[in-house]
Amino acid sequence: MDVFESLESEVRSYCRGWPAVFQKASGSRLYDEEGNAFLDFFAGAGTLNYGHNHPLLKEKLLAYLADDNVVHSLDMYTVAKRRFLETFQNVVLAPRGLDYRVQFPGPAGTTAVEAALKLARKYTGRETIVSFTNAFHGMSLGALAVTGNGMKRGGAGIPLGHSVPMPFDNYLDGRTPDFLLFERLLDDSGSGLDAPAAVIVETVQGEGGLNAATPEWLRGLADVCRRHEMLLIVDDVQMGCGRTGPFFSFEQAGIVPDIVCLSKSLSGYGLPFAVTLFRPELDVWEPGEHNGTFRGFNPAFVTATAALEFWDGEGGKGMEKETLARSEQVEQALGKIAAAHPEAISGVRGRGLAQGLAFTEPAAATRVCAEAFDRRLLMETSGPESEVVKLLPPLTATSDELDEGLDIIASSVDAVLV
Amino acid sequence: MDVFESLESEVRSYCRGWPAVFQKASGSRLYDEEGNAFLDFFAGAGTLNYGHNHPLLKEKLLAYLADDNVVHSLDMYTVAKRRFLETFQNVVLAPRGLDYRVQFPGPAGTTAVEAALKLARKYTGRETIVSFTNAFHGMSLGALAVTGNGMKRGGAGIPLGHSVPMPFDNYLDGRTPDFLLFERLLDDSGSGLDAPAAVIVETVQGEGGLNAATPEWLRGLADVCRRHEMLLIVDDVQMGCGRTGPFFSFEQAGIVPDIVCLSKSLSGYGLPFAVTLFRPELDVWEPGEHNGTFRGFNPAFVTATAALEFWDGEGGKGMEKETLARSEQVEQALGKIAAAHPEAISGVRGRGLAQGLAFTEPAAATRVCAEAFDRRLLMETSGPESEVVKLLPPLTATSDELDEGLDIIASSVDAVLV
Amino acid sequence: MDVFESLESEVRSYCRGWPAVFQKASGSRLYDEEGNAFLDFFAGAGTLNYGHNHPLLKEKLLAYLADDNVVHSLDMYTVAKRRFLETFQNVVLAPRGLDYRVQFPGPAGTTAVEAALKLARKYTGRETIVSFTNAFHGMSLGALAVTGNGMKRGGAGIPLGHSVPMPFDNYLDGRTPDFLLFERLLDDSGSGLDAPAAVIVETVQGEGGLNAATPEWLRGLADVCRRHEMLLIVDDVQMGCGRTGPFFSFEQAGIVPDIVCLSKSLSGYGLPFAVTLFRPELDVWEPGEHNGTFRGFNPAFVTATAALEFWDGEGGKGMEKETLARSEQVEQALGKIAAAHPEAISGVRGRGLAQGLAFTEPAAATRVCAEAFDRRLLMETSGPESEVVKLLPPLTATSDELDEGLDIIASSVDAVLV
Amino acid sequence: MDVFESLESEVRSYCRGWPAVFQKASGSRLYDEEGNAFLDFFAGAGTLNYGHNHPLLKEKLLAYLADDNVVHSLDMYTVAKRRFLETFQNVVLAPRGLDYRVQFPGPAGTTAVEAALKLARKYTGRETIVSFTNAFHGMSLGALAVTGNGMKRGGAGIPLGHSVPMPFDNYLDGRTPDFLLFERLLDDSGSGLDAPAAVIVETVQGEGGLNAATPEWLRGLADVCRRHEMLLIVDDVQMGCGRTGPFFSFEQAGIVPDIVCLSKSLSGYGLPFAVTLFRPELDVWEPGEHNGTFRGFNPAFVTATAALEFWDGEGGKGMEKETLARSEQVEQALGKIAAAHPEAISGVRGRGLAQGLAFTEPAAATRVCAEAFDRRLLMETSGPESEVVKLLPPLTATSDELDEGLDIIASSVDAVLV
Repeated sequence: MDVFESLESEVRSYCRGWPAVFQKASGSRLYDEEGNAFLDFFAGAGTLNYGHNHPLLKEKLLAYLADDNVVHSLDMYTVAKRRFLETFQNVVLAPRGLDYRVQFPGPAGTTAVEAALKLARKYTGRETIVSFTNAFHGMSLGALAVTGNGMKRGGAGIPLGHSVPMPFDNYLDGRTPDFLLFERLLDDSGSGLDAPAAVIVETVQGEGGLNAATPEWLRGLADVCRRHEMLLIVDDVQMGCGRTGPFFSFEQAGIVPDIVCLSKSLSGYGLPFAVTLFRPELDVWEPGEHNGTFRGFNPAFVTATAALEFWDGEGGKGMEKETLARSEQVEQALGKIAAAHPEAISGVRGRGLAQGLAFTEPAAATRVCAEAFDRRLLMETSGPESEVVKLLPPLTATSDELDEGLDIIASSVDAVLV
Repeated sequence: MDVFESLESEVRSYCRGWPAVFQKASGSRLYDEEGNAFLDFFAGAGTLNYGHNHPLLKEKLLAYLADDNVVHSLDMYTVAKRRFLETFQNVVLAPRGLDYRVQFPGPAGTTAVEAALKLARKYTGRETIVSFTNAFHGMSLGALAVTGNGMKRGGAGIPLGHSVPMPFDNYLDGRTPDFLLFERLLDDSGSGLDAPAAVIVETVQGEGGLNAATPEWLRGLADVCRRHEMLLIVDDVQMGCGRTGPFFSFEQAGIVPDIVCLSKSLSGYGLPFAVTLFRPELDVWEPGEHNGTFRGFNPAFVTATAALEFWDGEGGKGMEKETLARSEQVEQALGKIAAAHPEAISGVRGRGLAQGLAFTEPAAATRVCAEAFDRRLLMETSGPESEVVKLLPPLTATSDELDEGLDIIASSVDAVLV
Repeated sequence: MDVFESLESEVRSYCRGWPAVFQKASGSRLYDEEGNAFLDFFAGAGTLNYGHNHPLLKEKLLAYLADDNVVHSLDMYTVAKRRFLETFQNVVLAPRGLDYRVQFPGPAGTTAVEAALKLARKYTGRETIVSFTNAFHGMSLGALAVTGNGMKRGGAGIPLGHSVPMPFDNYLDGRTPDFLLFERLLDDSGSGLDAPAAVIVETVQGEGGLNAATPEWLRGLADVCRRHEMLLIVDDVQMGCGRTGPFFSFEQAGIVPDIVCLSKSLSGYGLPFAVTLFRPELDVWEPGEHNGTFRGFNPAFVTATAALEFWDGEGGKGMEKETLARSEQVEQALGKIAAAHPEAISGVRGRGLAQGLAFTEPAAATRVCAEAFDRRLLMETSGPESEVVKLLPPLTATSDELDEGLDIIASSVDAVLV
Repeated sequence: MDVFESLESEVRSYCRGWPAVFQKASGSRLYDEEGNAFLDFFAGAGTLNYGHNHPLLKEKLLAYLADDNVVHSLDMYTVAKRRFLETFQNVVLAPRGLDYRVQFPGPAGTTAVEAALKLARKYTGRETIVSFTNAFHGMSLGALAVTGNGMKRGGAGIPLGHSVPMPFDNYLDGRTPDFLLFERLLDDSGSGLDAPAAVIVETVQGEGGLNAATPEWLRGLADVCRRHEMLLIVDDVQMGCGRTGPFFSFEQAGIVPDIVCLSKSLSGYGLPFAVTLFRPELDVWEPGEHNGTFRGFNPAFVTATAALEFWDGEGGKGMEKETLARSEQVEQALGKIAAAHPEAISGVRGRGLAQGLAFTEPAAATRVCAEAFDRRLLMETSGPESEVVKLLPPLTATSDELDEGLDIIASSVDAVLV
């Protein structure tokens, strides 16, 4: 690992907890260069909902590349982009009655968020964006200003402004009614809260500790937005694309955001890709007013199209049903582990196939992940104190694979809590 | 094209000037779905220095993907990343005596710039970044604040701060000595210019109108930075990777920036990829202080490695020599065209294989590109008024291909200027 | 009034509700140029705690001016300034065991606040200031950023930053525990609230609607500040100098702020004057780092000295006791009026001689003040909707004068609410 | 001086160079408590154009106060304010054909500047203000952001934004044409300079080192503003009220600013007072959108009225002519001193009765002032390195008094430069 340590910046992070050099990958497994297999409950931080190198996507990708189809096209029209747009319309938007315009803002989640914030500010003529405690939206300055993590905010080197954090669902343990403060601030012209352009929210805060908003809270938030003419942006970068069951994580709540950000698992194969969706009325962009070199990466259009078709196998209900079943399996297993350690584990967190265990003593979570790594299971921690062991298995993980991983977790927890 | 017009955001731009649906691509040619071939003097805005689907890179990419190697790995260690780092060290850094740490900041040029600005501010404890007139560094808020284009800045929807524009080389037509104002402002504690953390510069401003800084000016800038303890950041996203001849565009000037941003042609195949390079002393990042989902996209490591090896074919001098020869060919041909229209064309701009024609009447440049499109040549305009016809042919374009395109340009200019 | 309307800016305000041209003033009365006497329950928005032209102060002021003593001295040493400092030390600081340094930051409350915020930021090296809903701290950009009023904030013409509003005492009608959210945000490194330099608070929000913080809440706030190493700034510009009984409005709560701002009634005679007080450890100013032309206005030193001596008549307890007695008188009378109109009047607000009536229907408050003006009583409204009739009589108003005014209020209310 | 040192903040400044306790003052003299007389070439930093305690003003002030006229009235209408407005109209505005609205923004120069900047931003809907190198406009955050001094800017504790410094007249010693850069930046939509709301300028930079703009440069600036639809704000706080001869310092250049700030000598007696003047079209203020406790300090109206009448003695030409004669006297004497020390003194700076000597070695200027103080002459230094000895004698100083002071300066310079 010499070259990594001598040449790569100190900013590198995951490699520090997982001292292996990975080489191959397939389905739910990663393999290091010595051939050791690791069960992957990390899945590229939620980027690999279909597992590694899914054969259907791989086939389409190889064929596309082998046949000298265009790879890089910025925002020129291409056949691959047309197929993606049609498929997205047919599989995702139309069945849900969603009327969204699609922007290709660049290849990363943070660029999708930057585009969303710019558009919201331009459309409303206002500056302030309301974000939530423990939100994570990205590392470029616009997205970082609505991200909660203090260490990451400090990396900006300048004060981050034009944003205000509000308490996420259950942030105060039910000791105050939802949106009581937020609405009071909005209603009161003397509150000091300048009229916000938009609210940006994750339905489940992946990086923030697997905090899952209830459908009621999300509906309440949508109401507040409507009453106060603020746009509602759902950052579905990590929780979209089926992670919680339905394609969008906000479907269960029955809300329709004004703007939606998608990335991570959208390409289905780990290829950099992101979109920003918004109601047609909001499409006030000038041509080229936001751009980016990699906003037309055709291989991602190809795998994304294949991924959508696969996901939609049985009219959109196959994967969704299966994911919900797997979620149930995970929830029960984690519940058992938590019940066995009522003092050390404060609860099961999350929703869908984004669940985890919250530890009373933050260091325990890191130690559990280290024990799991020794047992060849990859998992990361999340939360402001890294106090939550976070499971993001591929949606395609089999029931047996899940059991295998859950057993490793149980024994890792036991090993740490003895 | 219905689906594009009904579904894709109004922000789309290149497709408006090039009403075709592209499908295949190879070398210097793009093909639309009807089989029409277009000579590509745009090359993905400088992303495709090796042309479309270069066979050597394609072979490596297909093999890597076919063999189920890991695709997406964030900042875990992988075999593909190790090979890239070693190759980058051996081909790029070591021969030039450069001691840089490598950060993988995310997949886009704008993320490389964001990382550079954050690090400069963190390292120096200062906020202000000095940028230059007509600079282009990206669309996320940090990068946008150091970008000159007024329309794009306006898209932010909030005032952009913590940055100050200075005149680029020859901005005032030689009517004032270089850096006279800048140094006076820096020397004078009452000037109102807060001590800058860094200066960010492109050696040739691609989007800004192909303004090429002279080696003397760049050396002068490096001196100013050293004397005033400002970091020097070269954004080599578009002009690096051999576009002007040598690997880095600043080599001819003999300067060593503190921080360098690379992206676009780094992967060599249009795959989203970017790095931020900096002197080891500057590596004050905390682990994970800057992150991003697509900072470990292994197929890009693979094609980038192959591209570096190809570029370095004859010890780094093969491609460089050839690029300089091709540049000479382009310069002469453009010079002839300009000489034929002394009133309409104010001069040949740029350097290396980033050259163009500046038109007195901005609209003429757009009309020339439209005429060229009709003749099956792709070129874009640049400059604040879109007044420059900009040639970015692949570095691998043959002499004949260049002649073919230059002839089309000549006839397009004639058609417009009659 | 022609010259006012043709020459003075539209920004003029009080004159619109009080269409008279005032000429003379004495004690609790103002006289217009036609000789009409008005009872003054406005007292220069709390600037005239000793009434108009108090004879003791007037005598000292006239003698000082007549004898050619120095008037304007910036921060040179003068005999008048020395006497003020000694008196302030002996009458105010020493008896209360307060160890404060005195800064003369300029002649207005807003300059005292600007100095306080700068010092807090410089001392802590942090940027964020926490302010409260419906706070009012001044109109210059630093003070305006911590002021709540939306119309006034909008006047800045730029986004106001580096500040966050928190709910003032009882802002949510007791439906959430005090400081629950604030402390959670401070404790949580992922909350998105950057560590604040300081909290700025008024103990009674005069402009914000006569919202009075309880002693418990203020003590709680001081505790939060101590636990989280934030400086506590009390803006006592309107409520200090005896307005609520004791010299400082925070004395009843038993807290000791790190920084205190005083102005308005400090000179006792309407002369522009302000001080910023802070613990000696905080005195990290460089000489001249904050300055201002009118920071040494000696006539104000003279009247302020005389005012302090008068206020302290019986060892600091004379005026305090009297003010509390008068407050009681006002509270009872207002309570009666409120009780007579339980639906139209939502309650008696405020504390000390800063009390008022809150109306359910905001327009009623303005109409009551208009009726009172017709009856020759001057009172203004306050609160975000101008929904509170606000009484700020001179502390020297006699019991009879108070009764006279309270009777007018009662009849004005009756006239409006019929 | 114990109480000063133990109780007053370290921010105190002038007292450090002038270790005396002042008590009385008359005309051009200040007296310390031991009766020592000091000739005052400082005049309250330009606040005392009529000297100390001018008998005509004093008489009016004493009469006003003695007769129980109203002192403090916010923006209520008063007899004293009406007389001031009428006199200002008759003496200042009408004879010069100026059509300005008058705002009373608070008692200090910095509040006049804050009001000007807010109004310019509100009126234009833009944020950026262009200021000049070595400008000084005040210490509150809005004014500080357009002030050049690095130490004072640093006191803000937050980055200062929404402003850009441009080179003042002759900043680059004639090595570049006036406004060449500024206009190029404005003309170029890609320059990175966001369209400014306004330009703020002092015609002579008092704090910045007595840099006097030529009439040509000021006219050029007014042209640039007109062509680019930026408002022109002249901050005449120190140089207005006759300091350079005519009432406004910009009259000689023949320009008509959109907004003018006045304070310092406006009251004529050292009483805190300021106005912001602007063209009627700009008067887009909402009532009360900008306010301030001391915006109606009637004694200042009274002395300001008397001062204007005195200044205008012979139809506005008496004082102006005399000031120009005195300026000539000062210029010649300073020229002689400079000529005697060609290496140590780089030149005579300034205009009108704001002139000074610039020293090659900054420390010499401070030593000259110290020597002068020992010889009982008060003068301060100015400029970013305190390298300029600055003379601001009262406009009422007699020719003999000027000679007396100039002789002291000559001998102080000799003492320092031996």
